[in-house]
This record gives sequence, structure tokens and C-alpha cells, in this order.
Amino acid sequence: MKDIAPRNDTFAPFCGIKLEECKNGFARSTMKVEQHHKNGIGTVHGGALFTLADYTFAAAANSRGTDVHVVVAINAQISYMKAVTEGILTAIAEEIKFDTKVPVYIVKIFNEKKELVAVFNGMGYKKEVKK
Amino acid sequence: MKDIAPRNDTFAPFCGIKLEECKNGFARSTMKVEQHHKNGIGTVHGGALFTLADYTFAAAANSRGTDVHVVVAINAQISYMKAVTEGILTAIAEEIKFDTKVPVYIVKIFNEKKELVAVFNGMGYKKEVKK
Amino acid sequence: MKDIAPRNDTFAPFCGIKLEECKNGFARSTMKVEQHHKNGIGTVHGGALFTLADYTFAAAANSRGTDVHVVVAINAQISYMKAVTEGILTAIAEEIKFDTKVPVYIVKIFNEKKELVAVFNGMGYKKEVKK
Amino acid sequence: MKDIAPRNDTFAPFCGIKLEECKNGFARSTMKVEQHHKNGIGTVHGGALFTLADYTFAAAANSRGTDVHVVVAINAQISYMKAVTEGILTAIAEEIKFDTKVPVYIVKIFNEKKELVAVFNGMGYKKEVKK
Repeated sequence: MKDIAPRNDTFAPFCGIKLEECKNGFARSTMKVEQHHKNGIGTVHGGALFTLADYTFAAAANSRGTDVHVVVAINAQISYMKAVTEGILTAIAEEIKFDTKVPVYIVKIFNEKKELVAVFNGMGYKKEVKK
Repeated sequence: MKDIAPRNDTFAPFCGIKLEECKNGFARSTMKVEQHHKNGIGTVHGGALFTLADYTFAAAANSRGTDVHVVVAINAQISYMKAVTEGILTAIAEEIKFDTKVPVYIVKIFNEKKELVAVFNGMGYKKEVKK
Repeated sequence: MKDIAPRNDTFAPFCGIKLEECKNGFARSTMKVEQHHKNGIGTVHGGALFTLADYTFAAAANSRGTDVHVVVAINAQISYMKAVTEGILTAIAEEIKFDTKVPVYIVKIFNEKKELVAVFNGMGYKKEVKK
Repeated sequence: MKDIAPRNDTFAPFCGIKLEECKNGFARSTMKVEQHHKNGIGTVHGGALFTLADYTFAAAANSRGTDVHVVVAINAQISYMKAVTEGILTAIAEEIKFDTKVPVYIVKIFNEKKELVAVFNGMGYKKEVKK
């Protein structure tokens, strides 16, 4: 990974998120469900799932390096499909469009049975890097 | 607050989020920005902002109690307006529609200068509570 | 209205949408429900409601004139609250943030009883106008 | 197509949308760009693109028939990628999740060069059909 942005992230590791793969607009991350990831009804918090997806989106969007610009999220949407209570979650980012000022990615989160847990749609903005 | 759901949440306190007010479809939460809330470029992570908004949405949606049903998020969208690096963030949830199977809320996040940081739009689903 | 963009729109009048008010980041439009606005179950089509909201968003976003830049939509989200079958619908756009490259608006659609029909959240992009 | 819902739609044909294929959660529609589809800057209106996507989503979501329930949209999000001015647009709906009260679909719109014009994410609600 040439990108420094995901590497300096502190919130993702705080949440237990690990970047497993990241190159050419693709990224894959994992998060092992812990007790502190839960919402009031005992399932994984929507914010934890969103963070996993958002981090994976940022990794994919910056996977080609951040020498010229860094992609920051301006807009994101998430649909929740399945409540999860345990196991390792995997997020996979697919690049929809990169050759634009506002690149778009779809991220899918799966549980260990490869069932779809959530679908995330993120739009970034290419910010010039000042040197 | 009659609702037990936000009270049992573990991810919100893990992220440093405090519920300040919660009644009749309204909720207000705060989060003091810490070093572990940051993304790779040193501003508050989109996932941390989303979690603050999402928790406030859930608190508002369940503010009338969870005896009959609990409202769980099925869909949410967030637009980011302003990068923040420090201070106490405040999220305020406004009830758009409650008398439906799929209630809707708008949550706004402000920095200490009362500038708008993010706008969140969440849709919940009323799940029957089994007794 | 100083903006030429909404004035040249052909799809809005084709759909029966009228711009009633437009200035300083605010806009209000109306659409009289006709038989050709319906979906397969006889209520107003989600696409017709979206068009009404989207047009009102564009009018508000360009209400200060399009000499320097024109705001084009890059992203929008809509939540449907109430099915409608007749009457005049009114859309009202509220400016959430304008002093940014990617301005944000919330548009609410009401029926004649002033009941909320849909909530729309739109993000635009300020495109430089070439002269 | 067993579903009666898209068949009774009046807004889609009014907009020039044709359902080309529809079965097992899949649907494909087309729309030939006409002068009355334009926005104020001469490109296809966001509302027209949304309507094409929304109709294709509804067709896919109801493709297994509407004897038991009809799927109505409760929430949708669209990201615009490429401005279009002419040609035939094609929308393709992919079923993300159907075995739920709130099914989810992603719809992609392409121009004649098979370039991506917009991505739509829709969530429906299964409404019981009264007999």
C-alpha cells in the first residue's frame, strides 16, 4: 500500500479494524466482533459496521497513493441487511468510478458464512495535497 | 429516559459518546474529540461522526420506551460538511415521522462554535418486542 | 430569480412542476398530481416525487445566479413517508450549507393537508462557468 | 413478467421508459433521451435518471409476482457519475437481498458506450396485498 492516509488512521485500530489488502482501487478489511461493538439490543452497532465500511472505502480510494491528492468522504449511505452478534466481519470495497473529482465506491460487509450484513455507498472528494 | 435500548449500548460509551437528553422523539448527545477518533489525515473519522449521529437517532427513536417495539436502523445517509480536529461535538436528533412502521429522523452534528459538521438522515424499523 | 439554469429546464415543466419562489438559497415548487404521475399501485411515482424535490434543490442551489458557477447534483437521497394520490404537492428547499465546493440542501414535500410526503437530501457540486 | 405493478405504471411510459426484461429479481429498462428530459444546463435531468432507476428497481422487486405482497420503495439514494445529452440509456437492477421485509437493490445506468452514468441504491418494503 502506497497510501499513507489509512496507515495513520487511529479510529480504525481503536475499533479493532485491520486492513488486509489494498491496491488499485480495491481494499479488504476485517473486524472481529467484541463485546464493546454492541448496540442496546446486543447486536453489532450500526456505527461499528459503518466505520468498517468507511475505512475500507477510504483505503480503496487512496490505494494509488496520496502524493497528488487525498480522497476524503463527503457523502455515504448504508443499508443494513442482517444483525450480527459474533465472528469476524469482512468488508470489501469495489471501485465504481475513480476518474472524477468525486470518486464512488460500493462496500459490502459479510459475516463468516459469507452472508451479506450491510451495503455501503460512499462518495469521496479529491483534495489537492499541499507540499 | 424510559428506553432501555440506548442504555445497554456498549459501542457508544466505548467511543466516548454521552446521551445528554432524550424524550418524546428528541435526543441530544455529545462526544469529546480524542486522539483515537482520528482518520489518516488527522481529522475526526467519518465513522466516529456517523456513530455519534446513529446513536442519537436510536435514542430519539426509542425515547418513548421499548415495551411494545424497539426501533432498529435499516438505512442511513450522512453528508460531511466540515472537518473537525478538536473540542466537544454535539448531535441533535429531530423526529421527522414516527407514526409509521419505518420512522425517520434527521440528526445534525455541531462543533463548539455551533457550526454544522455533518447531517445524518436515518430510517428505522419498528421490531415487535417478544415477551 | 437570477438563475438561468432552472429556467431552461425542460423536464420539470414536462412533469407539471412550477417554480413558485426562488431566492437566497430558498426555493418552493408545486406539482399538481395527474393520472400520468402514477406508479403501478396507483400512487404518485417515486420518480415524480424525486423530480419535484430535485428541481427545487437545483433552483435553491442556483438561486444566487449562475454567472460564476452552476451547481449540479452529484448525490441525492430520498425517504418516502406517505403515499399520495391527488392534490397539489409543495416542495420546500432549505439550504444547509452553501459556502463549500459541495453545497447541501434538504427538501421536504408536503401534501395539501401539510402532511410530510417525502424528505430529500441533495449534495451539489459547483462547476465553473466557462465564458 | 408476472408482476402487475410495473405494468400499471403510468409515469414510466410518460417518461419514455420501456421495461425490456424482468424476472427472478432482475430487471432491465431503457429510456431514449429526448429534448424534454433535460435540465437547465442541457443534460439529462437527475429526476429522469432517478425515475429510470426507480422503475427498474420496482420491476425487479416485484418480478416474482404480486399475489402475496407488493414491494414499495421507502428509501433510495443515487450518485451521478457522468452527464449525458443523447442516446439510449439502459438501467440494470441487481438484487442484493430479497428474503427480508425490506429488500435491497442496486441499479446501474449506462449510456450507449456502456459507460456508467449513475448508481442507485433502493430499499423497498413488502406490503401485504389485501384480497
